[in-house]
Amino acid sequence: MPAYAIGFEPLGRKGECLSTQSLLACARQLGVGISAICGGQGKCHSCKIQILSGSVSRPTPSEHEVFSPEELKKGWRLACQTYPAGDCRLSVPPESMTTIQRAQVEGLEIAVRPEPPVQSYRLEIPIPTLAESQADAQRLLEALAQQHGLQCNKVDIDVLRTLSPRLRSWKWQSQASVRQDEVVALGPWPSHHLGLAVDLGTTKIAAYLVDLSDGQTLAAQGAINPQISYGEDVISRINGVMESPALGMKMQKLAVKSLKQLAIDLCTEVGANTEEVVEAVVVGNTTMHHLLAGLPVRQLALSPFVPTVSDALDVKARDLGLHIAPGAYVHLLPNIAGFIGADHVAMLLATDVWQSRGVTLALDIGTNTEVSLIVNGKITAISCASGPAFEGYHIKHGMRAASGAIERVQILDDIVQYQTVDEAPPVGICGSGALDAMAQLYLTGVLNKGGRMIDSHSRVRTRKEQREFILVTADERDGQPDITLTQKDVRELQLAKAAIRTGIQVLLETSGCSEEDVDQVVIAGAFGTYIDVSSAIAVGMLPPLG
Amino acid sequence: MPAYAIGFEPLGRKGECLSTQSLLACARQLGVGISAICGGQGKCHSCKIQILSGSVSRPTPSEHEVFSPEELKKGWRLACQTYPAGDCRLSVPPESMTTIQRAQVEGLEIAVRPEPPVQSYRLEIPIPTLAESQADAQRLLEALAQQHGLQCNKVDIDVLRTLSPRLRSWKWQSQASVRQDEVVALGPWPSHHLGLAVDLGTTKIAAYLVDLSDGQTLAAQGAINPQISYGEDVISRINGVMESPALGMKMQKLAVKSLKQLAIDLCTEVGANTEEVVEAVVVGNTTMHHLLAGLPVRQLALSPFVPTVSDALDVKARDLGLHIAPGAYVHLLPNIAGFIGADHVAMLLATDVWQSRGVTLALDIGTNTEVSLIVNGKITAISCASGPAFEGYHIKHGMRAASGAIERVQILDDIVQYQTVDEAPPVGICGSGALDAMAQLYLTGVLNKGGRMIDSHSRVRTRKEQREFILVTADERDGQPDITLTQKDVRELQLAKAAIRTGIQVLLETSGCSEEDVDQVVIAGAFGTYIDVSSAIAVGMLPPLG
Repeated sequence: MPAYAIGFEPLGRKGECLSTQSLLACARQLGVGISAICGGQGKCHSCKIQILSGSVSRPTPSEHEVFSPEELKKGWRLACQTYPAGDCRLSVPPESMTTIQRAQVEGLEIAVRPEPPVQSYRLEIPIPTLAESQADAQRLLEALAQQHGLQCNKVDIDVLRTLSPRLRSWKWQSQASVRQDEVVALGPWPSHHLGLAVDLGTTKIAAYLVDLSDGQTLAAQGAINPQISYGEDVISRINGVMESPALGMKMQKLAVKSLKQLAIDLCTEVGANTEEVVEAVVVGNTTMHHLLAGLPVRQLALSPFVPTVSDALDVKARDLGLHIAPGAYVHLLPNIAGFIGADHVAMLLATDVWQSRGVTLALDIGTNTEVSLIVNGKITAISCASGPAFEGYHIKHGMRAASGAIERVQILDDIVQYQTVDEAPPVGICGSGALDAMAQLYLTGVLNKGGRMIDSHSRVRTRKEQREFILVTADERDGQPDITLTQKDVRELQLAKAAIRTGIQVLLETSGCSEEDVDQVVIAGAFGTYIDVSSAIAVGMLPPLG
Repeated sequence: MPAYAIGFEPLGRKGECLSTQSLLACARQLGVGISAICGGQGKCHSCKIQILSGSVSRPTPSEHEVFSPEELKKGWRLACQTYPAGDCRLSVPPESMTTIQRAQVEGLEIAVRPEPPVQSYRLEIPIPTLAESQADAQRLLEALAQQHGLQCNKVDIDVLRTLSPRLRSWKWQSQASVRQDEVVALGPWPSHHLGLAVDLGTTKIAAYLVDLSDGQTLAAQGAINPQISYGEDVISRINGVMESPALGMKMQKLAVKSLKQLAIDLCTEVGANTEEVVEAVVVGNTTMHHLLAGLPVRQLALSPFVPTVSDALDVKARDLGLHIAPGAYVHLLPNIAGFIGADHVAMLLATDVWQSRGVTLALDIGTNTEVSLIVNGKITAISCASGPAFEGYHIKHGMRAASGAIERVQILDDIVQYQTVDEAPPVGICGSGALDAMAQLYLTGVLNKGGRMIDSHSRVRTRKEQREFILVTADERDGQPDITLTQKDVRELQLAKAAIRTGIQVLLETSGCSEEDVDQVVIAGAFGTYIDVSSAIAVGMLPPLG
């Protein structure tokens, strides 16, 4: 079977690819992170690449659908649909790469008084002499007892491994970080005292560096979950592991690699060392939680959908492959069930809704959306497969809420008013913008009750047998293509909002409540900050509120 | 700089060697375990090899000393003294290899009632249903609580990583191993319940597989400590690390590799799986302890000779790189000081001398010999650099106490009577035999008070300007060379015994005791079982006993 030499630009990675192997498969083998949220089935169109030289297989029907003849002529292809027919060199554009994308991490910050499980103490350790030659670890523990009244009895093995030379080079002045009865880190005095908080989403990862002494968030950064190249939702990732068990550990390593890089970037930003991060907290849905911890996931997808573990988990960071402070733990919040994860628990905790009076709906909108109904402190939760439309995927001009994304839309007859992130020239449309657009199109009669687009509006046209509404014309964009919302986009958004609304209805019925009983709706996260609630009600995603 | 292809037989390992690199250095690079107890200085003569083909450097003076012209002609060389001058192939004889040697592990077994820190329990875990869909780990912990009244709250992460598929494949019947409040292993019911006990000596490693349910030793096996190729005593190994810090982790890995192999061999012997070993206990002197745990050793060699840690240490086996039960711990006994290690603590515990009445001397004879003086329960300990003579090293015909080793000697005029291990034809002389021989030679006047050999005895001859006493003649060995004890051997044995006696005297003086006060002498380990106490007294290693 012939094999060809493939070069990936601008990364400069080179490797061999069999003629029976797609360029996406080759990229994965070489560790080139090409986005492929449908798992390489030619459906999501996220793996666009450009052939620079060499010969490849002929375009497939799905490629003809995505690219214009001119684009195909210029070498634009989908990596999952393209097979080499000789040595070739190709370019991976930034938007097709999984690693350099950055996700949105802002949101409403809630002030909390920090009660970190790790505390730091300044120590002056007596210098050993022939008469007082106790072991270094014993002198450390004694100093903690005498100078701070602590009854520690354990020093982490990785702290011990550098203890003796470090104490000597620091002239016996140091800062010890203590968790329960264990010294988990040791630094010179003074050192930072940092915590890492991570929301490990199916699609996006958000990481925050927190000063544990005052609870202040020092820096935040996001990234695309690199596991996305093995499937966009949790079920396709679990299916992947069921077909090939080694994939579980591969996805574990991918997620950790991403966390490592985020930790490095965040620390660099504030001039700290990753060794000064003495605790990490990670939340995610149950599948993300299990994949990160290296736990089995097969049973999550089979009735009765049992997690391996649901209690909170304290795992040494090194046992996950994460390198922060030598003895640091990663705290994983408890999962409630196979599809209600630690991320939802974190949301309930952070928003304080778990102790609210009356009837509250709490939503965490993502590729999986979790909804809790809190009735006088009693919580019932449900998970809905809402898909990634609100995160900008599966929408023709969809994008994350980055600079230039249309985030607000108002339509008056044939006039479209919009607002973009950073007030930059429009580039595409993000979740809140798409929701607004759909609501406005419905309210102005461009969409009927079933979501079908009429064709009598001046801004509606038909392209490739599909109606689409022109939000921004090429004229307004100096000749760049129109930005539209297509009939298919509307269908995707309907699927997402219907999944969420169905979840809400099931919860209300199960709890014997009616829509009118709902006193409060809390929507978590960045999306919750930007969403227009009236649009959400207009399209039927949320019930009418009193 | 020219490089040559070198082949090592019978291992079949091949690799390149620079002309400036000794064959020993080349062997080390390739991971071929050639013994080099002097660290490659041409002194110990343990790295004998035979050149089979190709050209090498000319013999050095120290090689002329070791080999006869005929042996040199046959290609016999010291690997540390020989440099390649072209491609070559060489043979490593079994006695020069570190890995296949097996050390002595027998001794007086003391019956103890086991009180293992890990207990095993049979569990029948309820099968999950949609109505009872708690997480697998929670159901495991609940079963421990309900079926055995245990309040565990933790399952090791590596146990969790296989928990769900295993419970299902075992049809929810299992055996859980619990340490304090943590599940450290899970097997099908019934599984073995095993412990691994290891004496990590500077020269030899002895490992024992113990049934934790009844305390019975199921199998024992020994090996040469592979660190020996980086120096024969603790000081030369510490010096090695001080010169090249990476050597510390290299020696750590070598020791663990040896423990791994011993665990596999022992388990194979009794038809068990290494995963059924739920706890390991390791003792060793402070340097061996630190090197195994990956702790720094530099400060051990510099005043005030401070260990990094002296308390007992419980480390996850995986944190040492040792793979037994997934969540198993390695328990390292406490060290007393930089040169009184956990091995001596174990000896004091095992022999129960720590609670003996009267005055007791307790000795642990090895390359480093530790001596404790117990006066009505008060223990004072000292360490002596006795060297490896009693372990058969540095003695011309020295060997370990294996089949054919002369272990008892009696001399009457010119008649030598001896006894060998297994009553096999004599091959060499082991520690107890050498001690006997020296005592007998002294008692019969062949050695004077200072240890000088007279030349008027019919069995004394001079070879290479050195007197030697013929213990076994070539005639008695069907023409194989005589087995002798040389003047140099006597000097080595004198150094060893003098070091030990000096330690005893210092202890007695410090404690204000006299030799006559000593009620009891306990000598630990295999050597203690075989040593002739009257010989030890005759040569002055032990004080005269009442």
